[in-house]
Amino acid sequence: MSEVKGFLFPRTATGASSLLPAPPWHYSGAMLTLEYRTDPSAVAELLPAPLEVADDDPGAVAVIWADWQSCSDSFEELVDPVRAQYLEAFVVTRCKYQGRHYSRCLFIWVDRDYAMVRGHHQGYPKKLGSVHLTRPVSVGKAGPRLEPGGRFGATLAAYDRRLVEARFTITQPSDDAGFVNALPMVHHRWMPAIESDGTDSVGELVTMSGYDAEVGRTFAGDFEIALFDSPVEELARLQPRELIGGYWREIGVSWRGGTTLERRTAPAIG
Amino acid sequence: MSEVKGFLFPRTATGASSLLPAPPWHYSGAMLTLEYRTDPSAVAELLPAPLEVADDDPGAVAVIWADWQSCSDSFEELVDPVRAQYLEAFVVTRCKYQGRHYSRCLFIWVDRDYAMVRGHHQGYPKKLGSVHLTRPVSVGKAGPRLEPGGRFGATLAAYDRRLVEARFTITQPSDDAGFVNALPMVHHRWMPAIESDGTDSVGELVTMSGYDAEVGRTFAGDFEIALFDSPVEELARLQPRELIGGYWREIGVSWRGGTTLERRTAPAIG
Amino acid sequence: MSEVKGFLFPRTATGASSLLPAPPWHYSGAMLTLEYRTDPSAVAELLPAPLEVADDDPGAVAVIWADWQSCSDSFEELVDPVRAQYLEAFVVTRCKYQGRHYSRCLFIWVDRDYAMVRGHHQGYPKKLGSVHLTRPVSVGKAGPRLEPGGRFGATLAAYDRRLVEARFTITQPSDDAGFVNALPMVHHRWMPAIESDGTDSVGELVTMSGYDAEVGRTFAGDFEIALFDSPVEELARLQPRELIGGYWREIGVSWRGGTTLERRTAPAIG
Amino acid sequence: MSEVKGFLFPRTATGASSLLPAPPWHYSGAMLTLEYRTDPSAVAELLPAPLEVADDDPGAVAVIWADWQSCSDSFEELVDPVRAQYLEAFVVTRCKYQGRHYSRCLFIWVDRDYAMVRGHHQGYPKKLGSVHLTRPVSVGKAGPRLEPGGRFGATLAAYDRRLVEARFTITQPSDDAGFVNALPMVHHRWMPAIESDGTDSVGELVTMSGYDAEVGRTFAGDFEIALFDSPVEELARLQPRELIGGYWREIGVSWRGGTTLERRTAPAIG
Repeated sequence: MSEVKGFLFPRTATGASSLLPAPPWHYSGAMLTLEYRTDPSAVAELLPAPLEVADDDPGAVAVIWADWQSCSDSFEELVDPVRAQYLEAFVVTRCKYQGRHYSRCLFIWVDRDYAMVRGHHQGYPKKLGSVHLTRPVSVGKAGPRLEPGGRFGATLAAYDRRLVEARFTITQPSDDAGFVNALPMVHHRWMPAIESDGTDSVGELVTMSGYDAEVGRTFAGDFEIALFDSPVEELARLQPRELIGGYWREIGVSWRGGTTLERRTAPAIG
Repeated sequence: MSEVKGFLFPRTATGASSLLPAPPWHYSGAMLTLEYRTDPSAVAELLPAPLEVADDDPGAVAVIWADWQSCSDSFEELVDPVRAQYLEAFVVTRCKYQGRHYSRCLFIWVDRDYAMVRGHHQGYPKKLGSVHLTRPVSVGKAGPRLEPGGRFGATLAAYDRRLVEARFTITQPSDDAGFVNALPMVHHRWMPAIESDGTDSVGELVTMSGYDAEVGRTFAGDFEIALFDSPVEELARLQPRELIGGYWREIGVSWRGGTTLERRTAPAIG
Repeated sequence: MSEVKGFLFPRTATGASSLLPAPPWHYSGAMLTLEYRTDPSAVAELLPAPLEVADDDPGAVAVIWADWQSCSDSFEELVDPVRAQYLEAFVVTRCKYQGRHYSRCLFIWVDRDYAMVRGHHQGYPKKLGSVHLTRPVSVGKAGPRLEPGGRFGATLAAYDRRLVEARFTITQPSDDAGFVNALPMVHHRWMPAIESDGTDSVGELVTMSGYDAEVGRTFAGDFEIALFDSPVEELARLQPRELIGGYWREIGVSWRGGTTLERRTAPAIG
Repeated sequence: MSEVKGFLFPRTATGASSLLPAPPWHYSGAMLTLEYRTDPSAVAELLPAPLEVADDDPGAVAVIWADWQSCSDSFEELVDPVRAQYLEAFVVTRCKYQGRHYSRCLFIWVDRDYAMVRGHHQGYPKKLGSVHLTRPVSVGKAGPRLEPGGRFGATLAAYDRRLVEARFTITQPSDDAGFVNALPMVHHRWMPAIESDGTDSVGELVTMSGYDAEVGRTFAGDFEIALFDSPVEELARLQPRELIGGYWREIGVSWRGGTTLERRTAPAIG
């Protein structure tokens, strides 16, 4: 009988095969945040108990694209960039738990397996998708400059269907990047029992934040966004009623862990 | 406060967004199984307590490629085949638990997100990979016939590195498809706590089998296999010492759930 | 000064790097052919002089999915299947040239570079796409049987947009697989001059057929099809007015070369 | 009979389906150039007549990664970034033609169809590959800063085999980015006859340069590089004997066309 190591499966004698290296994980990249108001009831139906809708502006959501490099504390991923670079697109709203407000990820797509499963660890309901975001450039004609008039596109597709497309134009420098994704996150982590009997082996409510956040250049702007239908997605239920504002920001952050707020488990066995 | 539905995340008011539809799941496809003996200690180090090495032939492993279509009970995936078709490659050994022998998946790669996460539910330590397996044909020159002399290739890559390549040649019809992957599976399901403190929110030992298995044409044959190194894989520790035999088989099977043999959980909170 | 070899670029001392091995090329696979009538003027506008519309049924088109294995005369690709397997989807019509009728490919997408460039050699206007086609199975529940009632899906996407989706249901065995794609092909091969001045270095009208065609199981059936829009595609101009019929067929064929019917070249230089 | 439009196939009544929009094409991005000396005879064998080896330093080659955004004069691609972003990796040497020195691309891989075929138009022998290059960042820990000590990785794979991996560390700012890729390009454009009889419909020697080149931040540094084997590549014949130097540079450039130096054509027909 052996002991096995590894932050995640497959666990081995050395731990080297783990789909995820142990935290901390470091992230550097750019985020495009597009905030708008949708029907508050479309948000409410996505907030399971004990979460409640936010007191103010309960229909506010943010659709966010992030273009990341990330790595473990070994920093080895950064010199084998196929293991470091990924994009993700996600939808966030705010909610209330025990009288305190949090940000909450409703839907999220990412383009690498490690980033997907890392999200599952954190409580993000990640699927794979095809995510694209225009990058700013400093020379030549093939990209926006980080200045008023700079124009970006952002798209998301999954299973060969385009789900979102958006265009953003910088209007001015900004000190912030919106309010919807600005709070500590509150996520559910669910693991259905293998009996597939409708019960969960564990259901957790967790909260988490990054640390050592460092913000770089930040700009506000105008945007347009279109959400499309799919037989296996419900993003189109979150159609915009009123646009709030868009933001492009450089950001660096690290993540080590979160805190379990509630945990319910199936009975111990064996 | 709302109720949300869905077998897996993201859970919504309708359940339609779940990355996985509820079981049962149905599978039809072809499997190539290559059995060989490796150093038994290389197998033993991958079997965490309470698992023990198999009594007989403890170094026997099978490297398996499967070319699947799968679907839920709605069968809708079959007419949107981007949601139904995937390939996987995996390594299986046998082990013993409480005096009974089981099959055990050591490593596995798959090329679709739903198949990856479905595997996580079942206890398979799935990563994404690029998996290829020659298909038999019935007309033309571009493929083997299902008859002696039919020649197949099978490869696996992940993160832009080839990990395995194999070639198989049919020698004769066969009634079976080897012995290593022939037992009920025993898997660990691990979910690290979000505190990332080295503890698991839940650790389970589960067993599972399919039902309504239906086998089609089956052939035995000779093979060669090469395992390559990667900084994030340990497959190359399972180098073959002695080849046992190879098998190609058509198979259909359904899966509804498994049984939790042992469950240890972190304390309930909240 | 060296001599370089290779059917296509990059040409080297050995020829081993050529993106394409020299013909002949062998193909085995399955084709789904969906024939319908569209507005004849939408076909006519895609037939450049000296091609003319077909005498009979000038609005008939076929949308075809093919799930191939292919290889060169070395047959080495078949045991490294990442180099042998690909899918393509294409649209064919009939046309007339010098009083004789031909089949003509209007649009085509494929999912591998060698297949794309091989098509360019043959005169097919290939782009990359994501192509999926349900496969028949012989065991289990996750796929159609090759018999009446067997139901297939077929889809095409490019640049993250779904362009076509279709469903086909077998009604009966068939001796043929339609009439639109049944004639020798007539293609244009155009190579714009590097001066990018609107002239072509060479413009050819070519004809080609496979040889050693071998047909396997063939079925006719009913279908539905939907064509979607994209800013860089014009498939949606070929909307169906009347469905003709659908066919699923196993096919094997080889290809060695074609015949140049017309060639116009820019002046020789140097 | 119709007229059809479009810079490249498929040509249609509107031209909107062309795999390539008409030039000019604009590019903005970052290039990593790693220069070293290989066996001059390995270079010589890749230079077909009438090209000759360079007078000085005939074994010097550059392996280059480029991380691009590109667009046409419509600039529409920039707001649908799946149509604008791509990476490429290529190998360049110098050569001599009629007494004048040029740069020459020996091998090249790219990850999008439009970029591949655009390269074919320009004379680059492009294949598809999986190309990755670390990006510099300005905040956070997950990426190098553009300053001494900044460390980058660069990799290339094709058909599930890693072909090149390299690591580069900035040592100092630089005014130039090497000498191997600094000259006008000289390329062959070959189009084999469809008769597949070993003749070319057209064979051209062309030269080309970009215009409106704009260089941004530029750094020199140290590097290591490893070239791996593949049954369908010959990159490993260009093993380094002596490293020269590495360079990272931001660059913007536009391209409108080139000049045909020599053209030999098969006889006109029809």
